[in-house]
Amino acid sequence: MQAELDLFRKSIEAFAEKHIAPYFDQWEKEGNTPRELWNKLGEEGFLCVDIPEEYGGLGVPYQFAALVVEEFNRLGYGSISVNISVHANIVSHYILSSGTEEQKLHYLPKMVTGEIVGAIAMTEPNAGSDLQGMKATAVYNEADETYTINGAKTFITNGEHSDLIIVAARTDSSVRASKGTSLFLVDAPIEGFERGTNLDKIGLLSCDTMELFFEDVVVGKDKLLGELHGGFITLMKELPKERLSLAAGALGALEGALEWTIQYVKERQAFGQPLSNFQNTRYKIAEMKTEAAMNRAFIEKCYQLLDRGELDTATASMAKLACTEAQGRIVDECLQLFGGYGYMREYPIARAFVDARVQRIYGGTSEIMKEIISRDIFGR
Amino acid sequence: MQAELDLFRKSIEAFAEKHIAPYFDQWEKEGNTPRELWNKLGEEGFLCVDIPEEYGGLGVPYQFAALVVEEFNRLGYGSISVNISVHANIVSHYILSSGTEEQKLHYLPKMVTGEIVGAIAMTEPNAGSDLQGMKATAVYNEADETYTINGAKTFITNGEHSDLIIVAARTDSSVRASKGTSLFLVDAPIEGFERGTNLDKIGLLSCDTMELFFEDVVVGKDKLLGELHGGFITLMKELPKERLSLAAGALGALEGALEWTIQYVKERQAFGQPLSNFQNTRYKIAEMKTEAAMNRAFIEKCYQLLDRGELDTATASMAKLACTEAQGRIVDECLQLFGGYGYMREYPIARAFVDARVQRIYGGTSEIMKEIISRDIFGR
Amino acid sequence: MQAELDLFRKSIEAFAEKHIAPYFDQWEKEGNTPRELWNKLGEEGFLCVDIPEEYGGLGVPYQFAALVVEEFNRLGYGSISVNISVHANIVSHYILSSGTEEQKLHYLPKMVTGEIVGAIAMTEPNAGSDLQGMKATAVYNEADETYTINGAKTFITNGEHSDLIIVAARTDSSVRASKGTSLFLVDAPIEGFERGTNLDKIGLLSCDTMELFFEDVVVGKDKLLGELHGGFITLMKELPKERLSLAAGALGALEGALEWTIQYVKERQAFGQPLSNFQNTRYKIAEMKTEAAMNRAFIEKCYQLLDRGELDTATASMAKLACTEAQGRIVDECLQLFGGYGYMREYPIARAFVDARVQRIYGGTSEIMKEIISRDIFGR
Amino acid sequence: MQAELDLFRKSIEAFAEKHIAPYFDQWEKEGNTPRELWNKLGEEGFLCVDIPEEYGGLGVPYQFAALVVEEFNRLGYGSISVNISVHANIVSHYILSSGTEEQKLHYLPKMVTGEIVGAIAMTEPNAGSDLQGMKATAVYNEADETYTINGAKTFITNGEHSDLIIVAARTDSSVRASKGTSLFLVDAPIEGFERGTNLDKIGLLSCDTMELFFEDVVVGKDKLLGELHGGFITLMKELPKERLSLAAGALGALEGALEWTIQYVKERQAFGQPLSNFQNTRYKIAEMKTEAAMNRAFIEKCYQLLDRGELDTATASMAKLACTEAQGRIVDECLQLFGGYGYMREYPIARAFVDARVQRIYGGTSEIMKEIISRDIFGR
Repeated sequence: MQAELDLFRKSIEAFAEKHIAPYFDQWEKEGNTPRELWNKLGEEGFLCVDIPEEYGGLGVPYQFAALVVEEFNRLGYGSISVNISVHANIVSHYILSSGTEEQKLHYLPKMVTGEIVGAIAMTEPNAGSDLQGMKATAVYNEADETYTINGAKTFITNGEHSDLIIVAARTDSSVRASKGTSLFLVDAPIEGFERGTNLDKIGLLSCDTMELFFEDVVVGKDKLLGELHGGFITLMKELPKERLSLAAGALGALEGALEWTIQYVKERQAFGQPLSNFQNTRYKIAEMKTEAAMNRAFIEKCYQLLDRGELDTATASMAKLACTEAQGRIVDECLQLFGGYGYMREYPIARAFVDARVQRIYGGTSEIMKEIISRDIFGR
Repeated sequence: MQAELDLFRKSIEAFAEKHIAPYFDQWEKEGNTPRELWNKLGEEGFLCVDIPEEYGGLGVPYQFAALVVEEFNRLGYGSISVNISVHANIVSHYILSSGTEEQKLHYLPKMVTGEIVGAIAMTEPNAGSDLQGMKATAVYNEADETYTINGAKTFITNGEHSDLIIVAARTDSSVRASKGTSLFLVDAPIEGFERGTNLDKIGLLSCDTMELFFEDVVVGKDKLLGELHGGFITLMKELPKERLSLAAGALGALEGALEWTIQYVKERQAFGQPLSNFQNTRYKIAEMKTEAAMNRAFIEKCYQLLDRGELDTATASMAKLACTEAQGRIVDECLQLFGGYGYMREYPIARAFVDARVQRIYGGTSEIMKEIISRDIFGR
Repeated sequence: MQAELDLFRKSIEAFAEKHIAPYFDQWEKEGNTPRELWNKLGEEGFLCVDIPEEYGGLGVPYQFAALVVEEFNRLGYGSISVNISVHANIVSHYILSSGTEEQKLHYLPKMVTGEIVGAIAMTEPNAGSDLQGMKATAVYNEADETYTINGAKTFITNGEHSDLIIVAARTDSSVRASKGTSLFLVDAPIEGFERGTNLDKIGLLSCDTMELFFEDVVVGKDKLLGELHGGFITLMKELPKERLSLAAGALGALEGALEWTIQYVKERQAFGQPLSNFQNTRYKIAEMKTEAAMNRAFIEKCYQLLDRGELDTATASMAKLACTEAQGRIVDECLQLFGGYGYMREYPIARAFVDARVQRIYGGTSEIMKEIISRDIFGR
Repeated sequence: MQAELDLFRKSIEAFAEKHIAPYFDQWEKEGNTPRELWNKLGEEGFLCVDIPEEYGGLGVPYQFAALVVEEFNRLGYGSISVNISVHANIVSHYILSSGTEEQKLHYLPKMVTGEIVGAIAMTEPNAGSDLQGMKATAVYNEADETYTINGAKTFITNGEHSDLIIVAARTDSSVRASKGTSLFLVDAPIEGFERGTNLDKIGLLSCDTMELFFEDVVVGKDKLLGELHGGFITLMKELPKERLSLAAGALGALEGALEWTIQYVKERQAFGQPLSNFQNTRYKIAEMKTEAAMNRAFIEKCYQLLDRGELDTATASMAKLACTEAQGRIVDECLQLFGGYGYMREYPIARAFVDARVQRIYGGTSEIMKEIISRDIFGR
């Protein structure tokens, strides 16, 4: 499989060099990528590659899907990596694992081609990682067998380009959110749905992240995804894959940062010799390389577990925790070795630094990961 | 003195609330502050306060000058703090310590009022903290007793607004830079001098940082600052004050970040209670508060040493190293407690995070600080 | 005062060289110091120096008492430092602050001379830092106006040599420990009192640490120390001084370790040059020296606050937390620089390493310090 | 293979419970294990298990040999683990990889049974990890075709019990040590050979570590191990296996420490509830468990690489660096959770703490590991 993976990696590199590198600075300034990029990614076969062939995918192992995320991060295109991660490794798999056959046949092939871009609207203002505090509602209208969705969601990746938004909403407010939440497939544009302005973040500048507003948005009952009130079950089922995708992105990012830095310290002269001659530089790089290798070994083990259907949420949470924390430390130290240039946007390491900061937060903060891991250890 | 310091601090807060807070977002977007801000700062008596009264200053102890830098950082205006630090705590003191009486009388009063904004042009592209690699030259023309300056400088704070630039240039290339470099007072605009574009940084967005180009810039011999070939001596003399100013800025920034965070975790609810109820939050804050208190004690000791003329470069380097490293750790951890909001520019903690990153780099990297401290310990 | 402090320090050094250095290895092997050492320490005026002259002390500021603890640690005699800290900076001050005039006149002069050695019996098996779980009782016998004490205490410093043990016991079990605990002065030997065997610790080998057993020990009501049921108030009053003494010990220990290590890396050759030539060595030492300087500045500030009666428990807890954590990190890194020799007991750094480990635990663990600091910040 | 490994692990546990647990405290006090323990270990088939069957071993994969080292550490018998590691994973493999057929047939079967205990004498006083500074010599006597060995070695594991000592000595002093050092098989006792006293270490108390003295020790030329002057080549060849054995030991130790600690915090009550209820405890354990899992994944990858003959020295050095550093951090944090009991020798965590400290030093310090890793990255 390694040979196929290497080939796939090369095709991503070639794509990025041609379709991304020349424009990326501009996209970062504009705060978004063009919608066409999705179609190009789809054409090249980089989207939803692990979706079965019957739904338009390639049906390859998860590791290929993770490689896309790894690789765009390694090349310094964190925003694009995040966009793809949500669309391909989260949204499409929610549909695959919990959708009806009809839903799968309708959405998945178009997600593979990039015709439909997916987003997932879970987090709400003032709620963050605490999903129990969710306030959005979906009320069933017996008359016409529809649901009316109301609520506001925030920090939504693919906020601007999304054509399909999976919305989590309370369908039974008399019970805990975990027992009374359902997921809905909302096709945008639709009446009552509005997108906020692009959020002004410190990093991932070309990644469209938004608030989304739902005011009396009406969808048919065929848009319910998974069981009624069973939204959390769908979510739980997909957590290992989701967390592992974030970890894979982190790993790609930190490996990329290390590669640039090793290159830089070899070339950059100070006090009459390359930086790579200084013991401090060498030891720092050795430490980082070691940490990267540990993370790589663990991720690869997780890929294998996932393929065998044995990756549990606690282990995936360890991967997310370890890799994103390592990413934070490593891009910070790498930037330091670039000196003043490390602070300039034109250097990829500068972008890698600000892009990295949110990785320990979204998809469940490091603190939430520790919660989950400790519950697994202590039984509650 | 504490009473005067408190009063002074209050006046800074009042100024900031009126003249900065309403506009700062806009300035950050535009990548600069308006030139008039300097005049307002001067009018209110916030510039060069420790310059003797005979040159227009207030002649108060250094701690007041440091407080300005501390305070703007504490309030979340890192860019302005950096601008002032260079102008007031570095440039004006170079002139005070090494200038001729005529130079002092000409420049200092106008720097106090903000009529003249100062910059210092030391760092060159591809040289960084290694001043020995300096390439800019100043050639003496016997005929008309002038110097012709050529070279390029980079990462220059106050790059756009500066009226006076202290330029370091080789006056004797046959010896080491430390023995053959001189400083020149260059009044801008002047023929042959050009400013580059504002550098695209990841933080300190409203701080004008630029490349400056000198092509056959001719200045009279009265523009030599300090001894001929003695540029490094002037620089060395001012290092303790310069490093302490950076440390003070770092301390203000980290104390500010902590204050916002303590406030935030008291108010922000998660899982049915304020974040400040969680042991993890409490312990992290306790650790950070302790680290802040240590840094505060050390800085105050340094203020006293400086006032007694006893602050050596190694000790000031410890202050710079410790405070900027603490700032890095603390703003990072504080941001984490803000969750997703910490990644949004509208939250001061997000800006504090990106602003902080350059503090471990400019004014001598953390690695250079360790060099200096270790030389002091080991005698070379 | 600095001159007196320096002189005092020199006298401690001279004493240690004569009375401790030649025997210390042996004492460590035997697991105790000889009882006469206390008398010698008293003769030389090293015990309870800040106790007022009317009770036999020198009435000097607290900083002198702290210096004794600092200095024995700096010289590598951690066990002796701990013994003295408990006797002089804790026990004698409990009596001074809460004792009756009669108690003060009886005990303090003899504690100054070393005729009486003091211990404090607070911690119980299975309770640790959680004093609320205290089980020892003292029951009042109306008939003869005595108290009968029962209970077991553990981790008691000066366990073997103590002549006076301050015992904390529940006098009212119907309320929380904090409201129903009293302190008693128990003169050993006394019927019903037994000492356990010396605990087998990994460090502080010559420090006698024991379990103490009280079975129907009867003491007169004149042996009540402070208010009935008011034991926690006495304890609280003395906490700042107690914590600061531990911090002072930690500071002395880490400064000593650094001194030995700087000396060692200058002398020790590897790969054809002294270790002090290697950048890694130099940077590590520079970092540690900086951390030591921060801690020193903070401690000195605390000394001043204590002298002015302004040192609160939260600030003293910060000192204890910061200095003992720094001690842990620094002795660990210093040991590393000694290579294999650092693992050998004959090298003071080896002992400093194992001695240091308990500092983050006793006198309130680092976690308890964070509790206290966070309560101070958040108001509960 | 997992099933066999589990079975093997169980047999080690059973052995330890019967033959070690009842006596270990006593051995730690005495500073040695009885000689018979080696024979028992041999009888049970725990020594040199990966040595081919033709030389008396079981010919199982390296992972079984590593498991022995892992497991004794996990059970808290660090000293025994170290003894075995040197004998089985280092000494016997030197012979296997570089010995003559005769040497293999003579030594290996007896090392498998424990009849012969092996040691390796490399390090010299004042040389440490810097093998280039080696001073021991072996001079060839043409007359009787023997070598005369002179020199002193230190920190020699199995110092007291060893029957066979592989001694490194300069055979050509006119070239660098790396080109002029040879290895000799010295059968003790032998004239001119003396053992020093057991070194007084802070940990690994029952592990016999000694200085060894060679004064005109004469051995036949058949005792030369490997090529003449080729000692470093033999050493280099075995480095991956040696480092991985140390890493395996570290991993076993940290996993064991974690298991005890998880158990302890579940049972130990404080403030009215088990320690495992406190968020601080839970998060620390979650972090440590994650770090342990990363190290485990990396080690397992290394085992596979070694089996395929693909484990290079840089990767093995990463394993040694990462695992021993993780061990240091984890046992330190675990001990903290035990409070005062963690400082008492009777608690395995106390021993694990002091045992761990040397792991970052011997077999190449962490600094040497970074040297090797950085050379691999930078090509020199």
